[in-house]
Amino acid sequence: MPTPHPTAGPARSSPPHAAPPPYRDPAAPLPARVADLLSRMTLREKVGQLNQRMYGWDAYRRTPDGGFELTEALYAETDRFEGLGALYGLMRADAWSGVDHGSGPGARDGAELADLVQRHVVERSRLGIPALFVEEVPHGHMALDGTVLPVNLAVGAGWDPALYERAAAHAAAELRARGGHVALVSALDMSRDPRWGRTEECFGEDPYLAARLTEALVHGMQGEPGEHFAPDKAPVVLKHFAGQGATVGGRNSAESELGPRELHDIHLPAARAGVRAGAAAVMAAYNEVDGVPCCGNRALLDGLLRGRWGFEGLVMADGLAVDRLARITGDQVSAGALALNAGVDLSLWDEGFTHLEEAVERGLVSEETVDAAVARVLRLKFRLGLFERPHGPHPKPPSAELGREVSTALARAAVTLLHNDTGVLPVRPEVTRIAVLGPHSDTTAHQLGDYTAPQGPGTGTSVLDALRHLAPPGLDIPHAPGCALTGDDRTGIPEAVAMAAASDLAVLVLGGSSARTPDTEFDANGAARTALSHMTCGEGVDLAGLRLGPAQHALLDAVTATGTPTVVVLVQGRPHAVPEAADRAAALLTAWYPGPWGGEAIAEVLLGQAEPTGRLPVSVPRSAAQLPVYYNHKDTEYGGYVDDSAEPLYSFGHGLAYTTFEFGTPRVSGREVAVDVTNAGERHGRTVVQVYLRRLITPVWPRTLELCAFEAVALAPGERRTVTMTLCAEPACAAAEIRVAESARAALSAAPVVLDLRT
Amino acid sequence: MPTPHPTAGPARSSPPHAAPPPYRDPAAPLPARVADLLSRMTLREKVGQLNQRMYGWDAYRRTPDGGFELTEALYAETDRFEGLGALYGLMRADAWSGVDHGSGPGARDGAELADLVQRHVVERSRLGIPALFVEEVPHGHMALDGTVLPVNLAVGAGWDPALYERAAAHAAAELRARGGHVALVSALDMSRDPRWGRTEECFGEDPYLAARLTEALVHGMQGEPGEHFAPDKAPVVLKHFAGQGATVGGRNSAESELGPRELHDIHLPAARAGVRAGAAAVMAAYNEVDGVPCCGNRALLDGLLRGRWGFEGLVMADGLAVDRLARITGDQVSAGALALNAGVDLSLWDEGFTHLEEAVERGLVSEETVDAAVARVLRLKFRLGLFERPHGPHPKPPSAELGREVSTALARAAVTLLHNDTGVLPVRPEVTRIAVLGPHSDTTAHQLGDYTAPQGPGTGTSVLDALRHLAPPGLDIPHAPGCALTGDDRTGIPEAVAMAAASDLAVLVLGGSSARTPDTEFDANGAARTALSHMTCGEGVDLAGLRLGPAQHALLDAVTATGTPTVVVLVQGRPHAVPEAADRAAALLTAWYPGPWGGEAIAEVLLGQAEPTGRLPVSVPRSAAQLPVYYNHKDTEYGGYVDDSAEPLYSFGHGLAYTTFEFGTPRVSGREVAVDVTNAGERHGRTVVQVYLRRLITPVWPRTLELCAFEAVALAPGERRTVTMTLCAEPACAAAEIRVAESARAALSAAPVVLDLRT
Repeated sequence: MPTPHPTAGPARSSPPHAAPPPYRDPAAPLPARVADLLSRMTLREKVGQLNQRMYGWDAYRRTPDGGFELTEALYAETDRFEGLGALYGLMRADAWSGVDHGSGPGARDGAELADLVQRHVVERSRLGIPALFVEEVPHGHMALDGTVLPVNLAVGAGWDPALYERAAAHAAAELRARGGHVALVSALDMSRDPRWGRTEECFGEDPYLAARLTEALVHGMQGEPGEHFAPDKAPVVLKHFAGQGATVGGRNSAESELGPRELHDIHLPAARAGVRAGAAAVMAAYNEVDGVPCCGNRALLDGLLRGRWGFEGLVMADGLAVDRLARITGDQVSAGALALNAGVDLSLWDEGFTHLEEAVERGLVSEETVDAAVARVLRLKFRLGLFERPHGPHPKPPSAELGREVSTALARAAVTLLHNDTGVLPVRPEVTRIAVLGPHSDTTAHQLGDYTAPQGPGTGTSVLDALRHLAPPGLDIPHAPGCALTGDDRTGIPEAVAMAAASDLAVLVLGGSSARTPDTEFDANGAARTALSHMTCGEGVDLAGLRLGPAQHALLDAVTATGTPTVVVLVQGRPHAVPEAADRAAALLTAWYPGPWGGEAIAEVLLGQAEPTGRLPVSVPRSAAQLPVYYNHKDTEYGGYVDDSAEPLYSFGHGLAYTTFEFGTPRVSGREVAVDVTNAGERHGRTVVQVYLRRLITPVWPRTLELCAFEAVALAPGERRTVTMTLCAEPACAAAEIRVAESARAALSAAPVVLDLRT
Repeated sequence: MPTPHPTAGPARSSPPHAAPPPYRDPAAPLPARVADLLSRMTLREKVGQLNQRMYGWDAYRRTPDGGFELTEALYAETDRFEGLGALYGLMRADAWSGVDHGSGPGARDGAELADLVQRHVVERSRLGIPALFVEEVPHGHMALDGTVLPVNLAVGAGWDPALYERAAAHAAAELRARGGHVALVSALDMSRDPRWGRTEECFGEDPYLAARLTEALVHGMQGEPGEHFAPDKAPVVLKHFAGQGATVGGRNSAESELGPRELHDIHLPAARAGVRAGAAAVMAAYNEVDGVPCCGNRALLDGLLRGRWGFEGLVMADGLAVDRLARITGDQVSAGALALNAGVDLSLWDEGFTHLEEAVERGLVSEETVDAAVARVLRLKFRLGLFERPHGPHPKPPSAELGREVSTALARAAVTLLHNDTGVLPVRPEVTRIAVLGPHSDTTAHQLGDYTAPQGPGTGTSVLDALRHLAPPGLDIPHAPGCALTGDDRTGIPEAVAMAAASDLAVLVLGGSSARTPDTEFDANGAARTALSHMTCGEGVDLAGLRLGPAQHALLDAVTATGTPTVVVLVQGRPHAVPEAADRAAALLTAWYPGPWGGEAIAEVLLGQAEPTGRLPVSVPRSAAQLPVYYNHKDTEYGGYVDDSAEPLYSFGHGLAYTTFEFGTPRVSGREVAVDVTNAGERHGRTVVQVYLRRLITPVWPRTLELCAFEAVALAPGERRTVTMTLCAEPACAAAEIRVAESARAALSAAPVVLDLRT
């Protein structure tokens, strides 16, 4: 039965001297505050709380004196629903929003802008309900002066949840310091097809690794679980739920044909871990799963997430995803109704949710369903203390220096040495001249990844800068770019070749880019429509062939043909297929998109000032023709292709150190696995001890291997330590093997310890 | 409760003058005969009926006088279970079995061998139970002198169920004439990834087309539905059930991750149609679907197939598929039990089913379950009349000439003209010299496809032979192969180039091969393990890159570079990615594997003696990197890749005629669609009118298009006819569009007729 509508009177605040209503009482229990406020709201006001229609950058403009003023667009939006539920991207700065250092809010004045908007919203709201400021924080706050962190794929390569938790805490503190509230963070997408342009936003291909990092993310951003968030902590919206990494052909927002077991095994564990860790919200994904679009999937959002998992948070729809449902419902009103009934609470940019009043009138949704969604939005606002502190005071921002430190530490952890057969690395003392070549070597612009704001001048370190800065005196370091990231202009290659030929070593920095430029064309949801300039990756930039620009391949061929030992460094948002580098380079590293200070991290590893500690969070394919190549496929009897291997070029978990490690036979007791690890080389090093499960007797066809625990250990030369890990859960099988190794491929031949769980 | 065991006495036949037992009475109702016989059998005898362990070619050998004798292996097998349930491949001849014209049975003496074996089996069986002779008949009986038909993919290209029904009837008659009983036929696999080596065994990518052809197959082979099979009709085992075309990466027997809706929409309709048409048996596939192996999938075999579909026939497991279940059950005994409990009746080559007595003793299966499976095997033997006529008389074989006619007709229907922009085809009267080039042009060996027996000398026609035979007098037709199908030997290219340069037209016949040779290595189930010699396709021959041999590409480049108009003909078992041919050839045709007389069909089309009538049953990709490319993907908003299109090079349904057709606006009335079709050109021609459904208002995310009816129409120049078709079923949606066109791509821009089904 619908709640009776209170009369929406003109009064915008309580009469003087009256006792404040219960919802204004910070000491009242949270459910009571929510219920009280809800009971006072009109249907229109309620519907307003479920909308997040504006682009934040349309809400303000710069004044001639350098301050901000609000726009007619904001006034119109707050008038429409007599308030504002949420505002997306008030501080977003990038090529799509058109916001840059000239027009947008930075660290200095972001909070001032947030307060200005919030004052207007609260004033315009009869009941004084503040807006949620929802911001993109996929790898640092996507705002001017925000600290850019390495992308998720690089975080995945670090296998270091504790470090990532610190970085996430930093990003949340930056967000809250400038008046933002809610962080949209990539975490749940699994990288199953590197053709997908959003591969960089994934922690990798493995559900356990992604779950551990998602847990760290939630802990880092939200802090200790509790009713209220600390002032420097930000509720997260974990995106995307669910199966978006499994769309066919790696095509963005395409269908996912997965069955429920595959979805549960691979694509849901990160979400489950995030929910367990207390995530405040999840974002329902664009894609459908086996016919049912996530934003209209009641079984997924209501049945699984809220029902079986007990999730009490908010479900936000991805941008314009509700309106897309009109394709199957026939119009936007019924699209909004479908999404709300399925379990979506808060829409993003859609028309559909603006018509929920009509949907109630048409009987497509009940007002109880509206109320339940509104309650979840209000609850989050109460948990953030917005009614008590709608506009500050805001906490002091963490120092930019700390941001640089944590970003660089994450980058350092991500640099992964894939091969080094000739021992060319670390750079030997006898090397006197290093030619630093390639289109990625002298720029930081393409180290950042998608969803990054324009960087201030001087932010970041390129590989060339860092090598010149860190190299011992007397080491000559000439540079030539050789070619651009894209296209087939080879005119710069001869210069690079001459330089390589005249050097002891060539460092060739190749790769891709997700850097959006003002000439990029965008879809209505900000995905890139055409990849102009240098874009080869990022949202909307799906790649069939996985190859670098043709000139880069020509440069690689030409430089390696000189005979000068060549170290290839790949800076990339996905594993590109560059098997030539594996064949011809003396050493090969990938740094993914390591962030602004990635050049420093790479240079430290090259010079041996840091150990290479990254491990692959994804299998690296030989070519797009052999996809998929993830290690945790089913244990079937198929062999390879007749014209190529079905095995990846480099295995999940692979990554070399400058030393070597030896593993003892694992010992298993209950859910504990212990293994003795020895640094058998002559340098300090860190390895990631990886525990894989191989199910033997099981009702469902098993995977070849499943990662079920890992732990990094740093050891001095000759040092031995026993590493004890806890298996993620009791394996749901009657018998299994445990194999401990330094990569999935190595685990295939590692000595198994058989667990018979039938007795 | 288990049936009480009768005592297995030494008596092998009824005492003299006693009334024959009910199971021997042809007038008794079939269920009563089955029940009576079952009640007389020991558990061991029953288990024997469920096994089909031997390779048929191990059952006999040639005697010096040219006859046959039985082997110790057969004696041992019939001793083991006091009879024989079924014998696989008694007449199979190919490189794997090692059977050839010197050693194996042919049209002349096949029945004699079958009778010899059957006499022994019946004698050895206490109750006189004959064996089922199960033979491979995927595209004609895979036996010496069997008529080879074009592969299924070519049949799919014909879009002619009536013609295929005639061909299927011919194959069944050949099988029965030489004493075979049951035909193993490919029908149910859908081509969703052309990397799969068994793509040639699919009718294409579309479930409706496959369903229509499966129905025709069952009608053709089995005849009118009824309790008994006519003497020249053969019960079919439709293979494979289910989802085998959807294994990841196109890898044979790998996992399929499909959800239930995708499985039902795409992979089950052909099976459903086959069951509705009365198919006697289906084969449970190797692969798993979302974790559950088909041979252990009770929901699929018992719940769906027998329960919801009402299937009363036999379920046979694919070769060694039961034993593979030991991977998850722990041993072969429990593997056999899992398969039997799931609904498998008859095993092929496995050890698992030989231990069913032990499985009963261990309580893993009940004797009722064994009985139910045995009853289904016995029922098929009664339906075949084997108790009445265990060894003939066999029907007279159809004439070889008729076989050639029907095979050639199917080949002719399959030849598909993909482009002919310059109108170079049909060959113009002014052409005086045609250079016939390419490794496929002067041989029939590679036109046949996998699962074919060695051909007798002189069987078949190559493109070169046919062109020389059919061309008008005075047309000079020189020939050079240019290169081999595989490898990169380019030494023959200059000769071909010189010949092309000196001709008015070049016909370049390229492609792949599934021809197995004695040096091919085989897995235990007959799949090719290594692709030696010319194999680029067939079971076990999965291809990552979809490219032809490198020398073939070089030959194509060199011949087209001469400037002589070049017609490229692709003879292949899958759509290879040869976009160069689309760019550089004056015309392009594909004939798939058209069978022995394919050269004739191709030459007729080239010369204009036959019209090109084939239409693509699969989308042709530009490269493996853009897979999947099937037309009936979901209607999502994704665009292409930034480095390539996501659209196929040629669309499903595409195929040019030598004339053009115009379609009127379709008229829909109930489930009838009528459209006026006009031959707007100056030649006779045949087009396939294709009706596509585009769901509008629907609970489940729809596909862009779904084929829902088709009809071929042949028209004289200027002729117009109204073609009336019946939609496959009431679309399960509230509103839909109907679009009629000559291909899926054309349907995208065809004028829609909207059906509002809500009223």
